[in-house]
Amino acid sequence: MLADLYELAMAAAYFDNQVPGEAVFELFARHLPKNFSYIVAAGLEQALDYILNLSFSESQLRFLRNHPSFRRVDDAFFEYLKDLRFTGSVWAAPEGTVLFPGEPLVQVEGSLIEAQIVETYLLTTINFQTLIASKASRVVETAKGRDVVEFGSRRAHGPQAALLAARASYIGGCVGTSNLLAGYELGIPTYGTMAHSFVMAFDSEREAFQAYHRTFPESTALLIDTYDTIEGAVNAASLGISPTLVRLDSGDLYDLSTRVRRILDEAGHPSTKIFASGDLNEYKIHDLVSRGVPIDAFGVGTELTTSREDPALPGIYKLVELRRGRRTIPRVKLSPFKVTIPERKQIHRVYARAGYIDEDIVAIDDEPPPEPGAQPLLEKMIEKGHLVHRIPSLDEIRERRKVQVQSLPNEFKDITSVAEAPVRLSPRLSSLCERLYHDIV
Amino acid sequence: MLADLYELAMAAAYFDNQVPGEAVFELFARHLPKNFSYIVAAGLEQALDYILNLSFSESQLRFLRNHPSFRRVDDAFFEYLKDLRFTGSVWAAPEGTVLFPGEPLVQVEGSLIEAQIVETYLLTTINFQTLIASKASRVVETAKGRDVVEFGSRRAHGPQAALLAARASYIGGCVGTSNLLAGYELGIPTYGTMAHSFVMAFDSEREAFQAYHRTFPESTALLIDTYDTIEGAVNAASLGISPTLVRLDSGDLYDLSTRVRRILDEAGHPSTKIFASGDLNEYKIHDLVSRGVPIDAFGVGTELTTSREDPALPGIYKLVELRRGRRTIPRVKLSPFKVTIPERKQIHRVYARAGYIDEDIVAIDDEPPPEPGAQPLLEKMIEKGHLVHRIPSLDEIRERRKVQVQSLPNEFKDITSVAEAPVRLSPRLSSLCERLYHDIV
Repeated sequence: MLADLYELAMAAAYFDNQVPGEAVFELFARHLPKNFSYIVAAGLEQALDYILNLSFSESQLRFLRNHPSFRRVDDAFFEYLKDLRFTGSVWAAPEGTVLFPGEPLVQVEGSLIEAQIVETYLLTTINFQTLIASKASRVVETAKGRDVVEFGSRRAHGPQAALLAARASYIGGCVGTSNLLAGYELGIPTYGTMAHSFVMAFDSEREAFQAYHRTFPESTALLIDTYDTIEGAVNAASLGISPTLVRLDSGDLYDLSTRVRRILDEAGHPSTKIFASGDLNEYKIHDLVSRGVPIDAFGVGTELTTSREDPALPGIYKLVELRRGRRTIPRVKLSPFKVTIPERKQIHRVYARAGYIDEDIVAIDDEPPPEPGAQPLLEKMIEKGHLVHRIPSLDEIRERRKVQVQSLPNEFKDITSVAEAPVRLSPRLSSLCERLYHDIV
Repeated sequence: MLADLYELAMAAAYFDNQVPGEAVFELFARHLPKNFSYIVAAGLEQALDYILNLSFSESQLRFLRNHPSFRRVDDAFFEYLKDLRFTGSVWAAPEGTVLFPGEPLVQVEGSLIEAQIVETYLLTTINFQTLIASKASRVVETAKGRDVVEFGSRRAHGPQAALLAARASYIGGCVGTSNLLAGYELGIPTYGTMAHSFVMAFDSEREAFQAYHRTFPESTALLIDTYDTIEGAVNAASLGISPTLVRLDSGDLYDLSTRVRRILDEAGHPSTKIFASGDLNEYKIHDLVSRGVPIDAFGVGTELTTSREDPALPGIYKLVELRRGRRTIPRVKLSPFKVTIPERKQIHRVYARAGYIDEDIVAIDDEPPPEPGAQPLLEKMIEKGHLVHRIPSLDEIRERRKVQVQSLPNEFKDITSVAEAPVRLSPRLSSLCERLYHDIV
């Protein structure tokens, strides 16, 4: 039932008018969020789960029957919905795949009705997780090997968004999250220190640190900026133990971390790590890292979990093909700046000799590979309503992202300028496009 | 379990060190999102529901026990968690209340542990819904009486965010949403037309319109920009009926709607409404409305559902008071730019004679009202673990927002400049702050 009303309205009209045929829809983004040169596909596991379990309950059908828009719709439609299950097929780029603008992430083939009804759920799931995995990848690459922990549950768009953002951030290369539920439900490593309120609950910062160490002798992670960061560092350095880490959450992180590092080293705690947080993003991390800041790990919250600079991947879900019996009818729309490319496609990735991605050739699905050795990126996930692909572990997905980002030429990893997408249409697809655009116009 | 790890870590340390006392935490935002002059409180119903049902399952406790951070934590703590329920009290501004920066939305009083554990869930729930209700209020006020429908599920941060955004947008003044689940679960009115794919599924646009009309004779809402908006309008105007509405989703909306209006009127359909969508926000709507555009209603998606211009309300949750037996200890933190104001507070709203909001006086909770007739905004919701306040209907909440925004002076409704918050501290609270800041520094 997480669908837009119009999907059910269209379904009713297709049913009522006995519109025949099968349809292919593709989910893709024409433009990427601001400053993104690539995206990391994510959210597919949840999308497949939804498709495999698609059905309407009795009480949902009662709600629809009584909806003002559906008052005049024939009962036969609701009878049809009662037994509706997804019986079509789905292709997709596995999670963790690096993609460029315009390339399909998911393709759905089925009856017009079943392929249309899944639109909104697929979009919200794929758009969001892909957005956050891509943002995380930007942040993680900028940290140049230093750990990044996702810290933004409190600014996520609700409890489920917090959980899904933790998942997507882990795919994007974060080492873990502060979100315990993500640890419990998804097995993602969870990290945390203490809040300012903990320090404030004791009569002095020193007492607070000692109490924390008593309970966590093996992982004494201390927040040192509640009153004064430098005094906090002195307090942390004089407990008679080497704290596991100290956390800075405010102020000039370069200056403070440098002074804190000196205090820790001079007190004989070279192994104590410095962890920094506080409105961080890829730009601030880039600045700190390029100046050689002595920070060992970053906690990134709001800017990552909401992709604050641009909080939406504008993925869309468009009809590209209609099949009636043996006839295949490619479909395009022509609204200004919103033309679509017809037919179900395959993306063939071509690598240069050095192992870098050279280009992606988008071809009609049944074309032969346009170059020897090109790697097809879209795989069949569901066939006639059944899962036909193994669901990979989060760690496998995470590894896929890492390997693929390593094969990206450097210009794609520049966080401040957008590289041109290395994507071209196959000759056959190009000429089909031209023919269709002219036919209709 | 939707908590940050550090909340459980602090709880363990409080338990282990037998830190005594009760605490009061306040949830507030120091700054508002970009260009916001006020916020509309939302999300409280879900927050209260969470607090009233707080508990840990056996398998969650097993997960915690095995967590690397908790390996050395005594079993007694997990036994304590097994029976933990929220037994404290909660005050809050009812949903739909208009508030200004720095003012508390929610206050939680309880044992240090129970008041700390609820932090992340409260923040994510209140931050997100308040953000979207406030954004919706900006958009709706700009539309000057024209209807606004929330259309952004596909760009929401996951399925639950789509549902909660529909709820918050309705609180903020939207007439409804495209999200069917929000209709089914929350009783919010749902609206929709058709997608471009519907038009593309037929051999011609005309056939598509006729088929849709056959199924929905009473609410024939037609999308007319799939191929060419003007031709689409001509097709819609010549079906032999007056369509309920036509929808434009691309192009220059001022120019196109003016031409479409003329086509409809000349064909004898003055009652057919024009509905516009396509990357709209409060700025674009302001521009269109101020030029007298003949659009009757707006569908607003991504920009509303993600609050795209600034997708986070930076609400925080801070310790303001500790109680040990009869001693009350106000608490402040002093991190640079992040000082807090101590004590549980009440907000007293003072109205000018004309019914406009004059100022809010923030006082310590037990101070007498600073002005005769001032209206206290924070109400007790939970007392000793039990709900003591009626949960209002969404329509009551929606009405509260409407009445309160009407009482805002115009400068607060200007969407491009930020009005100064009409908030001051009571003399007693002011002098307490000064004393504390000096004592600690």
